[in-house]
Amino acid sequence: MRKKLYEAIFESNTRAGKLFDIFLLWIIIISVLIVFLESIPELSLYHKKLFYYAEWSVTILFTIEYLLRIYVAPKPWKYIKSFWGFIDFLSIAPTYIDLLFPGYHYLLVVRIFRLLRVFRVLKLVRYIKESEIHFAALKSSFHKISVFFIAVISIVITMGTIMYVVEGGENGFDSIPQSIYWAVVTVTTVGYGDIVPKTFAGKFIASLSMIIGYAIIAVPTGIFTVEISRAGSLLKKCDKCNSLIPSDSIFCNKCGSKV
Amino acid sequence: MRKKLYEAIFESNTRAGKLFDIFLLWIIIISVLIVFLESIPELSLYHKKLFYYAEWSVTILFTIEYLLRIYVAPKPWKYIKSFWGFIDFLSIAPTYIDLLFPGYHYLLVVRIFRLLRVFRVLKLVRYIKESEIHFAALKSSFHKISVFFIAVISIVITMGTIMYVVEGGENGFDSIPQSIYWAVVTVTTVGYGDIVPKTFAGKFIASLSMIIGYAIIAVPTGIFTVEISRAGSLLKKCDKCNSLIPSDSIFCNKCGSKV
Amino acid sequence: MRKKLYEAIFESNTRAGKLFDIFLLWIIIISVLIVFLESIPELSLYHKKLFYYAEWSVTILFTIEYLLRIYVAPKPWKYIKSFWGFIDFLSIAPTYIDLLFPGYHYLLVVRIFRLLRVFRVLKLVRYIKESEIHFAALKSSFHKISVFFIAVISIVITMGTIMYVVEGGENGFDSIPQSIYWAVVTVTTVGYGDIVPKTFAGKFIASLSMIIGYAIIAVPTGIFTVEISRAGSLLKKCDKCNSLIPSDSIFCNKCGSKV
Amino acid sequence: MRKKLYEAIFESNTRAGKLFDIFLLWIIIISVLIVFLESIPELSLYHKKLFYYAEWSVTILFTIEYLLRIYVAPKPWKYIKSFWGFIDFLSIAPTYIDLLFPGYHYLLVVRIFRLLRVFRVLKLVRYIKESEIHFAALKSSFHKISVFFIAVISIVITMGTIMYVVEGGENGFDSIPQSIYWAVVTVTTVGYGDIVPKTFAGKFIASLSMIIGYAIIAVPTGIFTVEISRAGSLLKKCDKCNSLIPSDSIFCNKCGSKV
Repeated sequence: MRKKLYEAIFESNTRAGKLFDIFLLWIIIISVLIVFLESIPELSLYHKKLFYYAEWSVTILFTIEYLLRIYVAPKPWKYIKSFWGFIDFLSIAPTYIDLLFPGYHYLLVVRIFRLLRVFRVLKLVRYIKESEIHFAALKSSFHKISVFFIAVISIVITMGTIMYVVEGGENGFDSIPQSIYWAVVTVTTVGYGDIVPKTFAGKFIASLSMIIGYAIIAVPTGIFTVEISRAGSLLKKCDKCNSLIPSDSIFCNKCGSKV
Repeated sequence: MRKKLYEAIFESNTRAGKLFDIFLLWIIIISVLIVFLESIPELSLYHKKLFYYAEWSVTILFTIEYLLRIYVAPKPWKYIKSFWGFIDFLSIAPTYIDLLFPGYHYLLVVRIFRLLRVFRVLKLVRYIKESEIHFAALKSSFHKISVFFIAVISIVITMGTIMYVVEGGENGFDSIPQSIYWAVVTVTTVGYGDIVPKTFAGKFIASLSMIIGYAIIAVPTGIFTVEISRAGSLLKKCDKCNSLIPSDSIFCNKCGSKV
Repeated sequence: MRKKLYEAIFESNTRAGKLFDIFLLWIIIISVLIVFLESIPELSLYHKKLFYYAEWSVTILFTIEYLLRIYVAPKPWKYIKSFWGFIDFLSIAPTYIDLLFPGYHYLLVVRIFRLLRVFRVLKLVRYIKESEIHFAALKSSFHKISVFFIAVISIVITMGTIMYVVEGGENGFDSIPQSIYWAVVTVTTVGYGDIVPKTFAGKFIASLSMIIGYAIIAVPTGIFTVEISRAGSLLKKCDKCNSLIPSDSIFCNKCGSKV
Repeated sequence: MRKKLYEAIFESNTRAGKLFDIFLLWIIIISVLIVFLESIPELSLYHKKLFYYAEWSVTILFTIEYLLRIYVAPKPWKYIKSFWGFIDFLSIAPTYIDLLFPGYHYLLVVRIFRLLRVFRVLKLVRYIKESEIHFAALKSSFHKISVFFIAVISIVITMGTIMYVVEGGENGFDSIPQSIYWAVVTVTTVGYGDIVPKTFAGKFIASLSMIIGYAIIAVPTGIFTVEISRAGSLLKKCDKCNSLIPSDSIFCNKCGSKV
């Protein structure tokens, strides 16, 4: 019995396991939708009861699932302390805590982490792992891209400080942190328009910042492209003629010798 | 007679076919312009009659064309059920439906699909098919880019939820969906400025989102560039074993035969 | 005398030619600054006379230069009808036309073309020609990028029309052209914020447009990168005749010698 | 004694040197935070005294450090005239100048250069030097990218001038410089929304500018990617010592063996 339950809950090869996964997926989606919709003031006001019952239904289902998982796991403590055990706990804890200590309504936002459980059900983690090459490229290029980030931060602090002096508080550049915020908004080409240069000198410096920000994006893109190209291209040398050949070759395409 | 009409309507090698195509192209452009201009309140109010007559002229011309196409097609039902047959029907149906059931004015927007007919006249579909390599690259990289989309969606949901807690309804972050909308606007560097962080903590988190969004664009660009480079670079088929090999090969690296 | 003048005006190898170039460069910069500054209402109001005299000084200098160029050119008519002859004429014509037919003040904007003359003085055209490889890449990829432009235009028309139906005139989406303008602003990630979705459905569709626009930039970047890489990488110099030939050549395709 | 102090201050191999570095790093961070926070009007008003004492504490510590550095340096004048000597002087000078000539409050912003000292403590300069390849690529591609900048500036001036004529002062396009500022904001896809086209023609031209700006980013990205790929691809492994060396080497630059 316990073994069958284990297969249904933790695995997905059996029919029961697949049904359990599909059922769970729907409950997770509904539970996240509840969190989303409950945050809309008009909805939460007029359908307070509906949300209350829906939330508790979902929480009780998740609680049963959590207890079942503990019950069927070969090493319950290992499961509880594992990453997914923690996420499962986080999915139900906020509702109970809200019952005991009401008033910390914002805490309920933690329930958004239920979304992470979709990753387990859909086996997305494995899927992500499969594209390891890209992560290797991302990792090795992030090391190099850090120079880019130092450059961006330096530009943003410099431009922000200059604009604080040039424009001043009366034009919205109240303080250096505020001006740096403006510089980030500008250099990344987001451009909200909540803070905007008013003086001629300010507009000129802002234009410079924009063109720098517009062109500098080439740097991480270039680094990452080259990195990913290198990671994926995987060339090796032929033992005989020393020419570079695709790493999956069985015969060298220059001299025809077996590799 | 019917064969000649078929050549004129469905083909474009003959003089008549070319004339028919040019005539049709102009009617399509005029018909789309009518849809565009009619949607402008000032114009549709003062030139109601003009639009009425223009629309019906175009519709009647398209109806004649549609009936002719059915008449000359070797297998009329095959044409009617084909993609282009459906588009042709969609070009005339809304006007007639509006005559029978007035009041659903927005339905008329469907007439915008007339634009698709330009693709047939200009043989753009064939043109697009010719750049198959890019579509293959797009397809194979979209599979990989999906990891990027999962990342963007995760970032957007996380940042949106955090900002909902940090900024709250009084600063425009009314609900989680609204905050996620803000996060999409920010991470994609669109930056409307309709919702904007007001608190210090909010501005700091927003700055982080911007820099992430600014840098993360390197990922799909890098993947697609490498993919397109690989797809286009230089593969040819081995005469013996039909496997794809680098185009500068002298020996096939799969079967070892001389190319 | 005339030959010396020709050398000074048309060439820049002699001392006189270099001095003439530097002098001309300054006059051009001043003349463009006049156009810029004159367009600022406060300045043009309070310094009307100053601008009047400055403009006429520059125009007279340019007129003298123009007449001298005609005088010293071996084939005056050829110069007058050449590209640079036309630009030189355009630099002085607006001021005289304004004298004869005042009231078309906006015509004076044509004087901005004086800026083009900087290209001649700085020999920028030759400089641009030197990076021929990039232009070849741009040209051959623009052909391919046209598919991308068709895609962008299709997305923009579709998204604009959908938003016109979903949001409607009361939210700023007055007409289809207006909505398409909004779609361009959004898909290109410019994001002015002058027209902004208000309804939930509108915000959802807008978010989709943003993510599409954010990701689709990878396409022209990828195509151009590969094109430029191919244009620059597959060439080498022939030992014999020094011409650029594909790097995998065994025989030079210019002089036929074995490489 | 002096030698020990030298080791502690200028080097970081000894225990004393490491402790000194960590201590200095904290003081620098605090001193920059003071500059940031002092610029916030509410804070500087209510905590005037706190900032006063904090600033002087930091300045005195930096002064002691500066004098010590002069004292222990083998060639004091060489240190004073060096880049870091100048930065160290710039870190303390503004506070003393403000004491002597109060009223030039904005001068205090110069203290932001203290941030540069973080680079020395963290040895970031060496770190940046290590990624020399990227800088070489950036340098050689900036030469090529300059054509791109000329293109952007030409587009921006042309589009700005056209919009000045089309939209005019009543729609916010007051002058040509103002319109060029709008064009920079638009072409770089920043899009503040402070100046926005109102007329139909203006919106059409703006849409064109956006699409150009959106697509043209492919140019520097492509050039830089190819450049960086070329800079990185010219490395090969030494047969003897396995270190990466330029691919055109005849002798390994690490172990000196012939390749």
